[in-house]
Amino acid sequence: MIHAAVAGATGYTGSELLRILNAHPDVEVARITSERCAGRALAEVFPQFRGLCDLSYEPLDPKTLIRGVDVVFLALPHTRSMGVVPALHASGVPVVDLSADFRLRDPALYAEWYKAEHTAPRLLEEAVYGLPELHAREISEARLVANPGCYPTAALLALAPLLHGGWIEPGGIVIDAKSGVSGAGKEPKPHLHFPQAHEALCAYRVGEHPHTPEIEQEASALAGTVVRLSFTPHLVPMNRGLLCTLYGAAARPASTSDLVEHARSYYRDQPAVQVLDPGDLPNTRDVRGTNRCLLGLVAEPRTRRVVAVSAIDNLVKGAAGQAVQNMNLLMGLDPFRGLDLPALVP
Amino acid sequence: MIHAAVAGATGYTGSELLRILNAHPDVEVARITSERCAGRALAEVFPQFRGLCDLSYEPLDPKTLIRGVDVVFLALPHTRSMGVVPALHASGVPVVDLSADFRLRDPALYAEWYKAEHTAPRLLEEAVYGLPELHAREISEARLVANPGCYPTAALLALAPLLHGGWIEPGGIVIDAKSGVSGAGKEPKPHLHFPQAHEALCAYRVGEHPHTPEIEQEASALAGTVVRLSFTPHLVPMNRGLLCTLYGAAARPASTSDLVEHARSYYRDQPAVQVLDPGDLPNTRDVRGTNRCLLGLVAEPRTRRVVAVSAIDNLVKGAAGQAVQNMNLLMGLDPFRGLDLPALVP
Amino acid sequence: MIHAAVAGATGYTGSELLRILNAHPDVEVARITSERCAGRALAEVFPQFRGLCDLSYEPLDPKTLIRGVDVVFLALPHTRSMGVVPALHASGVPVVDLSADFRLRDPALYAEWYKAEHTAPRLLEEAVYGLPELHAREISEARLVANPGCYPTAALLALAPLLHGGWIEPGGIVIDAKSGVSGAGKEPKPHLHFPQAHEALCAYRVGEHPHTPEIEQEASALAGTVVRLSFTPHLVPMNRGLLCTLYGAAARPASTSDLVEHARSYYRDQPAVQVLDPGDLPNTRDVRGTNRCLLGLVAEPRTRRVVAVSAIDNLVKGAAGQAVQNMNLLMGLDPFRGLDLPALVP
Amino acid sequence: MIHAAVAGATGYTGSELLRILNAHPDVEVARITSERCAGRALAEVFPQFRGLCDLSYEPLDPKTLIRGVDVVFLALPHTRSMGVVPALHASGVPVVDLSADFRLRDPALYAEWYKAEHTAPRLLEEAVYGLPELHAREISEARLVANPGCYPTAALLALAPLLHGGWIEPGGIVIDAKSGVSGAGKEPKPHLHFPQAHEALCAYRVGEHPHTPEIEQEASALAGTVVRLSFTPHLVPMNRGLLCTLYGAAARPASTSDLVEHARSYYRDQPAVQVLDPGDLPNTRDVRGTNRCLLGLVAEPRTRRVVAVSAIDNLVKGAAGQAVQNMNLLMGLDPFRGLDLPALVP
Repeated sequence: MIHAAVAGATGYTGSELLRILNAHPDVEVARITSERCAGRALAEVFPQFRGLCDLSYEPLDPKTLIRGVDVVFLALPHTRSMGVVPALHASGVPVVDLSADFRLRDPALYAEWYKAEHTAPRLLEEAVYGLPELHAREISEARLVANPGCYPTAALLALAPLLHGGWIEPGGIVIDAKSGVSGAGKEPKPHLHFPQAHEALCAYRVGEHPHTPEIEQEASALAGTVVRLSFTPHLVPMNRGLLCTLYGAAARPASTSDLVEHARSYYRDQPAVQVLDPGDLPNTRDVRGTNRCLLGLVAEPRTRRVVAVSAIDNLVKGAAGQAVQNMNLLMGLDPFRGLDLPALVP
Repeated sequence: MIHAAVAGATGYTGSELLRILNAHPDVEVARITSERCAGRALAEVFPQFRGLCDLSYEPLDPKTLIRGVDVVFLALPHTRSMGVVPALHASGVPVVDLSADFRLRDPALYAEWYKAEHTAPRLLEEAVYGLPELHAREISEARLVANPGCYPTAALLALAPLLHGGWIEPGGIVIDAKSGVSGAGKEPKPHLHFPQAHEALCAYRVGEHPHTPEIEQEASALAGTVVRLSFTPHLVPMNRGLLCTLYGAAARPASTSDLVEHARSYYRDQPAVQVLDPGDLPNTRDVRGTNRCLLGLVAEPRTRRVVAVSAIDNLVKGAAGQAVQNMNLLMGLDPFRGLDLPALVP
Repeated sequence: MIHAAVAGATGYTGSELLRILNAHPDVEVARITSERCAGRALAEVFPQFRGLCDLSYEPLDPKTLIRGVDVVFLALPHTRSMGVVPALHASGVPVVDLSADFRLRDPALYAEWYKAEHTAPRLLEEAVYGLPELHAREISEARLVANPGCYPTAALLALAPLLHGGWIEPGGIVIDAKSGVSGAGKEPKPHLHFPQAHEALCAYRVGEHPHTPEIEQEASALAGTVVRLSFTPHLVPMNRGLLCTLYGAAARPASTSDLVEHARSYYRDQPAVQVLDPGDLPNTRDVRGTNRCLLGLVAEPRTRRVVAVSAIDNLVKGAAGQAVQNMNLLMGLDPFRGLDLPALVP
Repeated sequence: MIHAAVAGATGYTGSELLRILNAHPDVEVARITSERCAGRALAEVFPQFRGLCDLSYEPLDPKTLIRGVDVVFLALPHTRSMGVVPALHASGVPVVDLSADFRLRDPALYAEWYKAEHTAPRLLEEAVYGLPELHAREISEARLVANPGCYPTAALLALAPLLHGGWIEPGGIVIDAKSGVSGAGKEPKPHLHFPQAHEALCAYRVGEHPHTPEIEQEASALAGTVVRLSFTPHLVPMNRGLLCTLYGAAARPASTSDLVEHARSYYRDQPAVQVLDPGDLPNTRDVRGTNRCLLGLVAEPRTRRVVAVSAIDNLVKGAAGQAVQNMNLLMGLDPFRGLDLPALVP
């Protein structure tokens, strides 16, 4: 039995992590922390755990956090994680950090996009970017895994097979992404108030979303050259689900079938990614609550473009499920252990 | 390992049953049937099963259905089940019937409310009404379990502790129920077309819903006298979730705390029912995807009434989850085996 | 041209009032106030008014508020209105108050349900309860109109024809009401955060909602005897719409057709209320954005009950539209002037 | 008073047209037709018109359709309009055709994208593309106006100021569009069934949507060169609203402020288009029920791209409202007559 601690377990990412770990056959959650909720029972803050989990929140103290624990998940806000990770890292307990703090290798980029100086820049070299479909081996040997953002996960799973082997040009890529409202977090805000967000659709942070450099960093590594792309997120009136529509200039003649065949070959050992048949397109509905990514590919000969559409559950494959997939790798388990449930449809 | 067959697995109840059985540690689904989809793969009809289940639909034939099978689930439409059950029953394989065909003991009531003559009236005596919180012992010894309707499940779980011991009068009960749209089935219809059903709320079949006599039958047994009540269903713009608000005249002085204490005692061995603290009221959100029922109770001294509010997931505790709970009892397993996952929130 | 002032125009009721007044052929809004937004343009706070209305918020000062104004609407929070009304009333300018402050005639009831001492109890006698279908004559002669709450409007429009002429007993009435989320106001709160309120359904304030005594006050007047009833509000995942389901014991034999015929006769001069054909039931969709109330009636001979279902748009007939209907009466206009637009469907 | 006929008034476009015409101060609807509903009252098919409009459907006969009528609206399905238009055109009564039949000037393109031979190709030369912000003069002199598609309206209103004056390159344009479900029509279909479409998001008809050549035709005229672009529509779980996100390569150095200033100048006489301040982005919520288009512009210097986001109500500016705007031009009225109501928010 693996004993896990979850720090910062009061947001949607934290509660989703506890939902998944609760169903994992090899894991027991030993400890959860929260500053605001210290002393309160989990089931009081999240009624869905009534009768299923009797943990209570403790204040966050890196020393006590790791006591008797095999792995630590950090579901803290950005800029908070980097204050805690050095002490945890020194202890030797492996850490899966769900914040953005260790995703960008370049601390200057972090400062530029997150408007904060990085306080543990040396650990950036040690951190492994936790997208298991790209970096499984490194993750399994890591001690600090930077769990990807929701948008980068969907974007990179669409980009990777296309950049790998040069099916699209690395220049001129457009990523138009759409997310359900849970991606914006649990904190009530005017634009997330039900009557404002329901029956409403908008783009936000055009050209300014901090997931942009994260996508570019990994895309550049895949392409072997610096990639600059347009990334535009949108807010969609639904709870869960994230869809990325990617546009790239075809780098060689290819039919939709060619693209599908190649992507299936690229992901042949990756059950979390399902490449759909030609003509079929993904729907976020079919991944609700799961750690899957559905990928649809279309060759558009009229414009010499490739259009790729990927769908994930932003809280699962886009956050908590992927963190557990990373933990499985860290612990030497099958990466999909505890993650193979079908979607909740409808 | 228990081998199960599911007949009529193309509606929401059928697919939900497969979702739950797929995660059940002791069950393997051996066979699924469908008239319309015979020959097609499950994953083609329900994309959420891609990569998780490679069953294909067979035509329904009672003889082949039971081959090598320990239990049969029937997710057929009303009036279709009663054509199949006699042959299955004769074979000795236990049956959980999710249709309405064996819920009413009185074939005259069936004819009146379902506008069809019952063709297997003798089996009505053998059928056990499958609400495990009321009839666990009989279910465990049964060969034919009539799985309750979604509304009756929520209504009776609220009614039972109040009628038991005489906390409310058996006369004058009002049940105002509200359901998500999945309760209306998978068949597209004008009033269930997204733009018609979204941002829309209505009552339907006032005084005419066939779940009425089902609630009355069990309520009468609980009260020890004939119960006639008003039952009004409503359609709410959400996928899943069912809330029952019950109004009864107080039969003795009781505070909210008294009611809660009594209901907790009544359900003390029933983990599927959670009685909330005084002042707390259930939300369908907290049971999404689960086999739970949340129950809130309020004494209203101004009107000398008791108000009870129960929340379930109409497809789980209101249908497929309850069917698995019944199967667990039939097979001698812990009734909550495979049914203890937390809700998908948000 | 009638010149109107709207005080407290930053909530949903206020913006809806401006939407309706903006389309009214005989009204010009001369002044809007807000404490928080003083100095800001309306179109900045409510982008839907960009290019349509160039008003800016002023701070609330009763003296300047009435300058050059024929009528004042108060869309202030409860307990704030009663601080402003005395000065306005003394000035002679007629006031339509959308808060709850002048709805209850008995200041003791106000103190009990709103947890605040009434500071202008003498004006309670002068205030007219602004449900035009019941009190058109008094409203047209009033100087202070207390605009009804959203729930009382729907409840009373269902109750009035049934209590009038004694079709139901005044004892034992149950009102089960369901509202869209805009009824809870514009202020973000945890339970109204999109991911918490979407795909979620609950009852709230069971037995404690302050609209209860308001319904009882008017129902008692209609029945000619003290009426005590159960009123339970529910929160439904949609923006607008309110449905009341009312249960009363039949006081005399009556078919559904009898009920419909009587209600049509009762409302024969009231185009805002549409009594549906027997067998037809109202849907909130069909009143979206309108000042209408749809009313469906069902005789339930099995239980000797009458079930009535009424649907309104909580922000229009339940608030701002009704306020304009009252203003029309105050100003001697046709009561439906500016209020006869069809619903926005879908 | 202008007398209008509406043929094919049983879909969402038709009912929306009747909603708008009903509120238009200078129009009276003289006649409505429907094959399926001939003989039935409008208020029976669309309950929102109860008490507001007592028209009944007639069968469609071009001869009787025009009797006593000043203008005809055709809300018929694609391929049906072109069978009716020649006779109407010969009569001299001006026609606003809301179908796609007369939007493409090239009958070969029509055949290619709509999979049907055009049966009135000679009228294609006479038809004017009814986007009033681009073609007001031609529309005012036309006898046959081809009302644009919903996606082309939003796309072209974003494209026009950018192509005009050469702010973006005509090559490499990407249009990622998202629509509410009413855009898919009133006919129930499995993927539009509420539980399938709610909490679900997908792309559809990637590279194959017939609105593509319509956008390209007008974009080519604006650019003065042949434009080929990628257009991808998505289905979003809401009733109304359409958002277009457009990506173009900057053709000259320009800041966001430059773009906004230029677009404001471009649309200075067009109150239907509101160009937002730099940093502000449109939300479909703020145009609900209106004939407006909100346009946000962002210069993305990192990628040398321009991103434009436009929001419309797909049924109003994207269909029925625009048809009335065209009628106003045809009839010599102010183009915004009857179209200046604020949005229904929330």
